[in-house]
Amino acid sequence: MIMLIAKNTLMEGKQKEFTELAEKLVLATRKEAGCIAYDLVADQADACVYYFVEKYQDMKALEEHRATAHFQSIVPQFGPLRTKPSEVSICDVLPFTE
Amino acid sequence: MIMLIAKNTLMEGKQKEFTELAEKLVLATRKEAGCIAYDLVADQADACVYYFVEKYQDMKALEEHRATAHFQSIVPQFGPLRTKPSEVSICDVLPFTE
Repeated sequence: MIMLIAKNTLMEGKQKEFTELAEKLVLATRKEAGCIAYDLVADQADACVYYFVEKYQDMKALEEHRATAHFQSIVPQFGPLRTKPSEVSICDVLPFTE
Repeated sequence: MIMLIAKNTLMEGKQKEFTELAEKLVLATRKEAGCIAYDLVADQADACVYYFVEKYQDMKALEEHRATAHFQSIVPQFGPLRTKPSEVSICDVLPFTE
């Protein structure tokens, strides 16, 4: 299982535009077969910092996500709203079970 | 809903000790009433970086988590395994629904 954490640092005043765009991406992605969870979260300590926190079955599912029409049309629109590129960490979920 | 992201940067060679301790914390926390999800994930780009990614119903549930015996006994043991304090972001989950 894969988790992707993407830190987005916005320009002041771009939150509304960003979250409206992000909502479309989040709702579309949650319908993807390989997507286990997908959230946008707002840092309480900094009004300009948001994280996409995404969980996929495997790397293939993440690659499929990145090939979707909604990803390819929405994600480029985030660029002008940020002060710097998204800081992305792709991680392996440790499979702890009882 | 609350998400907590805690970046842990380990000393080289401390991964096994850290993940064994973390497993106890993860499994115990998942049983807490207010805990929605709780994962430990390993950054693919850096073998010394791990993230706790935690989701709680609300801030009260997070505070209850921090008051538990398992939190209070296990978390202090992480300190000597890290190169610096955990970098914690407490976030609000944006409630996107269809």
